Amino acid sequence: MRFGPDILRQADLLATISEEPGRITRTFLTPQHREAGELIAGWMREAGMDAHFDALGNVVGRYAAADAAAPVLLTGSHMDSVVNAGRYDGLFGILSPIACVRDLHRRGVRLPCTLEIVAFGDEEGVRFGVSMIGSRALAGRFDHSVLDRRDAGGVTMREALHAFGGDAEAIPSLARTNIAAYVEAHIEQGPVLLNEGLPVGVVTSIAGGSRVRVRVEGLAGHAGTVPMPGRRDALAAAAEMVLAIERHCAERADTLVGTVGKLAVAGGGAINVIPGEVEFTIDLRSGDDAKRRAALAAVEAQCRAIAQRRGVTITWEPFFELAAAPCDARLQARLAASIAAHDVAPRFLPSGAGHDAMEFAAIAPIAMLFVRCGEGGISHNPKETLSAEDAEVATSVFLHFLEHFDPRSLR
Amino acid sequence: MRFGPDILRQADLLATISEEPGRITRTFLTPQHREAGELIAGWMREAGMDAHFDALGNVVGRYAAADAAAPVLLTGSHMDSVVNAGRYDGLFGILSPIACVRDLHRRGVRLPCTLEIVAFGDEEGVRFGVSMIGSRALAGRFDHSVLDRRDAGGVTMREALHAFGGDAEAIPSLARTNIAAYVEAHIEQGPVLLNEGLPVGVVTSIAGGSRVRVRVEGLAGHAGTVPMPGRRDALAAAAEMVLAIERHCAERADTLVGTVGKLAVAGGGAINVIPGEVEFTIDLRSGDDAKRRAALAAVEAQCRAIAQRRGVTITWEPFFELAAAPCDARLQARLAASIAAHDVAPRFLPSGAGHDAMEFAAIAPIAMLFVRCGEGGISHNPKETLSAEDAEVATSVFLHFLEHFDPRSLR
Repeated sequence: MRFGPDILRQADLLATISEEPGRITRTFLTPQHREAGELIAGWMREAGMDAHFDALGNVVGRYAAADAAAPVLLTGSHMDSVVNAGRYDGLFGILSPIACVRDLHRRGVRLPCTLEIVAFGDEEGVRFGVSMIGSRALAGRFDHSVLDRRDAGGVTMREALHAFGGDAEAIPSLARTNIAAYVEAHIEQGPVLLNEGLPVGVVTSIAGGSRVRVRVEGLAGHAGTVPMPGRRDALAAAAEMVLAIERHCAERADTLVGTVGKLAVAGGGAINVIPGEVEFTIDLRSGDDAKRRAALAAVEAQCRAIAQRRGVTITWEPFFELAAAPCDARLQARLAASIAAHDVAPRFLPSGAGHDAMEFAAIAPIAMLFVRCGEGGISHNPKETLSAEDAEVATSVFLHFLEHFDPRSLR
Repeated sequence: MRFGPDILRQADLLATISEEPGRITRTFLTPQHREAGELIAGWMREAGMDAHFDALGNVVGRYAAADAAAPVLLTGSHMDSVVNAGRYDGLFGILSPIACVRDLHRRGVRLPCTLEIVAFGDEEGVRFGVSMIGSRALAGRFDHSVLDRRDAGGVTMREALHAFGGDAEAIPSLARTNIAAYVEAHIEQGPVLLNEGLPVGVVTSIAGGSRVRVRVEGLAGHAGTVPMPGRRDALAAAAEMVLAIERHCAERADTLVGTVGKLAVAGGGAINVIPGEVEFTIDLRSGDDAKRRAALAAVEAQCRAIAQRRGVTITWEPFFELAAAPCDARLQARLAASIAAHDVAPRFLPSGAGHDAMEFAAIAPIAMLFVRCGEGGISHNPKETLSAEDAEVATSVFLHFLEHFDPRSLR
């Protein structure tokens, strides 16, 4: 294997750079961010690239095209992590392209585009509660008010950036204008490729999402003295809503996922008290915004009907909405061709999770290559796995894509 | 009205004796217990009875029969309260019989039984976490190990009893042997009489109960990346179980109530994570132990089937069981006759809540008269209500019962 074992070794090394002993936690503008970035920049240089930290703490590696006026093909992913993370989320999309460049450089091959690999300093948003900070800046969508946000220790992002050696004033200059495309490799973080026995797949769209907080108010009562007919049990009503949401999404499983992740009886509830108030959350996602909105409306109508039938009231409070980022059809076809060239059947699948690529959808064609995870597809968890064989295939596919990428084909 | 307004006035006065300003909280062996007991003992004496605090802090009033060898008809209820209580729970069953004796005494009527009215010092069990302490001692079922239990301040029940002026050594002597019957009047604490427009009803049985803790373990996952088919969502599984329990009990609503009062996603859950583990409680009650046990087995089988179908596991942990205390059929008939004598249709209903009467079921025939509550039947809550009219009817019925009670009819 040319790429896989090295990539896994590099991921193992990065996994040792953590704010917490015994587990991986690497957040924005910390000494560990610095240390991981230096390591990555070193690998970029060793692979034949120029590399530097930009004003926001992203590491940018550049593999120049022969033609200095050539457009930029942007790739990369994030080097920060969630708390108690796995070792491949984000990093695979940095390490795999670096391996490609190393190979190109060794063979003396230049691309018709200048390739830039960016290791974004923040995507997960753990430290300041805002995600995609790095990619948002490069996409020209940085919101300067986030500089005043404070971490758990009371430090503002502005202060942390200054201490890191960054430059808040220079952030606007990070916005790219001449990008041919943004293409990101990433572990799937789900079980689809694993279940179908495929090492890689082409992302069709990065799902948009809607989140709603639902409060159900019934009537608390004594578990022994209130007969079953006439009860207004907020928990039983919420349970029926949970199942309605599940059923609606399951019937449209090709385009929709829906999850009730939090549900709590007010005050924790008591064994011998009929629950009077329950709150839960809904997370609906789809690669198709119209279908997501239709599902949200249908689910709301069903919940309201359940509430009415049971004599409880609901408060329906949408608090988050994100549009889907469709991947470029031509880039999908190019990735599929590179996959087929490796004797793998191209599998097209949506991404239910958000990725840096979303941020670029407004300014350039985007695409994503997914690589299979093991362990049921688990991610954001130390159990996250990636095999050397899959890293090998994905990197070889990505290299094939890069070598056959023609920026003129997107005009 | 002869009785109702006085009873409500006395309840209002007792409501001012509280450990907490602005709300009613009166627990075992406190100065408020002493003060309430003294007030009650004074009303007993004024009504024509002997009255004293017994060794455990119960106030016992005695209205002797003409025949010194006559058996004792025991009545009463508890004078302690839950935290932030209503004003009639327990107290009505003390004040109403006192009003009856006052009337009998005024008319110079003696009963064929000696009537004892007991104001139990503890039924709710708030201070030491053990309920029915007073009635258990009189029923000869006192468990001496509870004397070593400590309240939130670290004081043992033994120490508190000593400070109160009680006598732990004398508790065994409180056990009664020659009781003809135990008959208790109590607010319904539920909506049945209210919904049917009836002031009083006859209790058929004090429900027994089973409590179970259920843990559902599925597989946590990313709300965006795990497709609907193949999810092992612990919350959706638990929701289906909640509805199965509700449905099973609703179909048997004449004999059964079932409640899931607590339900929690492990760790609180997260909006974007499929719940991997959920815990909930089941509280099943019935006046018929065989039906309760059958329901418990049926509900367990249903939950296990749901778990199997959904690929989650469940842990089924029963942690409490209490047998039902059936009321004596002859006493029920006597109470019904007294109700009918007041031109009210006798309504027979089970008691879903526990009462002091339960403790006497093993040593004597028991019976209970329920009186209607307002406000949807709410109890254990400051909103608890009782009208003077209903207190009047219930007391008049109770007096009729007492005057027509023949201990020989129970032999």
